[in-house]
Amino acid sequence: MTPTWLPALTELLGPNQVSVEADTLAIHGTDKWFAANTPKAVVFAESTADVSATLRFATENNIPVTPRGSGVGYVGGCVPLNGGIALSLARMNQILELNPADGLAIVQPGVITGDLQNAAAQLGWFYPPDPASLKECSLGGNLATNAGGPRCLKYGVTRHYVLGLEAVLMDGTILRAGGRCHKNKTGFDLIGLFVGSEGLLGIITEATLRLIPHPPLRAMLSASFDTFAEAAHAVQQILGSGHLPSALEITDRFTLQAARNYIGDTVPTGNAHLLIEIDGQPDAVPLEIAALQTLLQSLNALTISAAIGDLACEAFWKLRREFSYSLRATGLIKLNEDVVVPRGKLVELVTFAENLQAESGFPVACFGHAGDGNIHVNIMVPDMNDPDQRDRAEIALDRLFHHVLSLGGAITGEHGVGLAKKRWFPEAISPGAMDVHQRLKSALDPNNLLNPGKFVTPISE
Amino acid sequence: MTPTWLPALTELLGPNQVSVEADTLAIHGTDKWFAANTPKAVVFAESTADVSATLRFATENNIPVTPRGSGVGYVGGCVPLNGGIALSLARMNQILELNPADGLAIVQPGVITGDLQNAAAQLGWFYPPDPASLKECSLGGNLATNAGGPRCLKYGVTRHYVLGLEAVLMDGTILRAGGRCHKNKTGFDLIGLFVGSEGLLGIITEATLRLIPHPPLRAMLSASFDTFAEAAHAVQQILGSGHLPSALEITDRFTLQAARNYIGDTVPTGNAHLLIEIDGQPDAVPLEIAALQTLLQSLNALTISAAIGDLACEAFWKLRREFSYSLRATGLIKLNEDVVVPRGKLVELVTFAENLQAESGFPVACFGHAGDGNIHVNIMVPDMNDPDQRDRAEIALDRLFHHVLSLGGAITGEHGVGLAKKRWFPEAISPGAMDVHQRLKSALDPNNLLNPGKFVTPISE
Repeated sequence: MTPTWLPALTELLGPNQVSVEADTLAIHGTDKWFAANTPKAVVFAESTADVSATLRFATENNIPVTPRGSGVGYVGGCVPLNGGIALSLARMNQILELNPADGLAIVQPGVITGDLQNAAAQLGWFYPPDPASLKECSLGGNLATNAGGPRCLKYGVTRHYVLGLEAVLMDGTILRAGGRCHKNKTGFDLIGLFVGSEGLLGIITEATLRLIPHPPLRAMLSASFDTFAEAAHAVQQILGSGHLPSALEITDRFTLQAARNYIGDTVPTGNAHLLIEIDGQPDAVPLEIAALQTLLQSLNALTISAAIGDLACEAFWKLRREFSYSLRATGLIKLNEDVVVPRGKLVELVTFAENLQAESGFPVACFGHAGDGNIHVNIMVPDMNDPDQRDRAEIALDRLFHHVLSLGGAITGEHGVGLAKKRWFPEAISPGAMDVHQRLKSALDPNNLLNPGKFVTPISE
Repeated sequence: MTPTWLPALTELLGPNQVSVEADTLAIHGTDKWFAANTPKAVVFAESTADVSATLRFATENNIPVTPRGSGVGYVGGCVPLNGGIALSLARMNQILELNPADGLAIVQPGVITGDLQNAAAQLGWFYPPDPASLKECSLGGNLATNAGGPRCLKYGVTRHYVLGLEAVLMDGTILRAGGRCHKNKTGFDLIGLFVGSEGLLGIITEATLRLIPHPPLRAMLSASFDTFAEAAHAVQQILGSGHLPSALEITDRFTLQAARNYIGDTVPTGNAHLLIEIDGQPDAVPLEIAALQTLLQSLNALTISAAIGDLACEAFWKLRREFSYSLRATGLIKLNEDVVVPRGKLVELVTFAENLQAESGFPVACFGHAGDGNIHVNIMVPDMNDPDQRDRAEIALDRLFHHVLSLGGAITGEHGVGLAKKRWFPEAISPGAMDVHQRLKSALDPNNLLNPGKFVTPISE
């Protein structure tokens, strides 16, 4: 049913920027997770003024607005649960400036993450955050979820690269925070407030991102171990001897076995696998690789192989990605939970996951960013439309999240809360923190119109 | 005059934790800046419960509360402008845990920054933030101001090292945010909200800080140039050729001359000086130093000398600190403004400072963290009690801040706004950002009792 406000909205923005076409509505009602809800209309913003006008219009007419970037999130964060307007930032996709002298890039939210990385690299500069979906995800989505990736271990998450931003509040207020400076202590951290707020506090329409000098060379080691515990021990020993790799990725037995079934013999032997990436100066990197190789030998690695330079490293990363594809190739649905535990609890988490597999009857595959304890625990379900399986999957998820929290862990390291983890959010934060969440939501979106139905509502609701 | 509420407060906390002794009141009325105002009472908190009880009591009795750590700030941030209670966190000075396996330290706010660094280093771990006052400043103050230092260039500011915190709101609510995980996307960034809020939103009573592997070796180069422009050009060339030093410190002609007057011939010749620190693996560091040395030679450095290892590096840093002492030795009062400009504007800033010297009649000395454009501009005033000089100093500061803002810069990079920069705060942020500041203050401290008189007031005021 066409909403009564459609003509006025179309008049405001022009017919080219508003759609109620069925296919368009459907596409903008979901992401890579299960949930879906069709919006009443999709707005394609082409400027900050468009975003502000849309939000002002929506406030006046009491219409919910759910912003979205590329729609490749894993937690249903951009599902317009209460209908209303799905506000797409995809057309605002320009790199406005790339400035090595100031060490920054200014981007619109629709820029694809990998495109910025490539553009910066061509000038010898580096934008480190590297979510797995970097070829299709947009920086706006990265900002909304404070996206991570393997390289966070050395380089930090998206938030650490935001020098400035422009955002629009639900009432249409446009604000700028930060700017072109690499340090700025002028007032409260509004950047941190909007980055990672999953579209619940405001919509980011422009960001000034910090670039750093591109390390001239990178190299990797691929090592396998007889047990997960030995691989986790190696993680601690590498860090404990003064190395800070750019990535430290671990993979468990189940995933390796799936990979062997999928791609065959190129997968190393053993029941656990470690991928170590370092980067730095051309003379230094091979020396550090040699030192790490010696260390891994002393830690009973079954196999060790090295890759020096971009091309060889990409082959190693390709193998790592195949691990993920091989899980899909099982034909099972992969409930990918990006939980985090304190680094010292890695073995406890994976032991728990093995028990959960026995207990739930579902295969459980673990791999991820060992250096920061951020392990993707994948519960593999044959058919989520089968009510019995779905119920059992929910019970398994309950068990997983409760256990993670009991280890001092977090329910999400990089995907966000969205809808997928909404149920566990109140348990995952302290009552005082929930109180502050509600106060912040009330302060910036008192009528609960911006991305409603997610993990926080204003106090009045 | 003894406040009417004193007996009840003393009863609440015990006589050992409340003082109205004149000397104690005076000490807790000021910091390293000029402003001072005597509080009615000083509370020495010994636990989170003490902080919560004090704030609840103060809310019930409408008493302003101004928190403080070591009291060594540069902007009057902990001056209790409206009297009331000065709440000292100095007695909460325990390192509660130091855990390499989890890569973290849990600290109370009164721990001295350098003490944590030393304790971590003894275990081979590293807490990078290094404000110049690290031997006397406390981590609570570092958190309140989001403290920086030379090593921010490579390692980031205090906020990037906070994994979790406990904080108390003005109404006594205790909350925990984050925790022991190195990645955590559970909800809004409450850590960022409190870190850097200068005691206006809540009081941090415990922090879980990220530690990283201690780089086994560091080394430095000291280089001098004929002109500041050449030194600034070298900064860009170093970064542009793929080096990311842990520090890149620049010093101008005036400061060098003062140092020559003060300590004599050990100060290198030339009109600008660059200090470059790198760190990393033992085999790698000497090779990178050699590469940088070659680069500096090609950039017309007048003198270059190298230091390898902690002991030799400390001698270089000592020389750098002497530059600062030599400014004090001029007998002039040093108005130290930690402004920031986009890195490409370094030369424009220092040229402006030279003109300001001619125009104002006051010497102006510049040195600081060139890599992130954070330059300490010191306006040197003979007598701030002389009304004419004071007026002229204020005019010079006005000129400086306006110019910095016109270059796209920031009025403070690491000291904070406090009282010292309050006058320029509204100009330094956008109207929309001011609006959000007021909404946040209203949401968390609606009665304006927490550190009142500073740069933000609630909407109702």
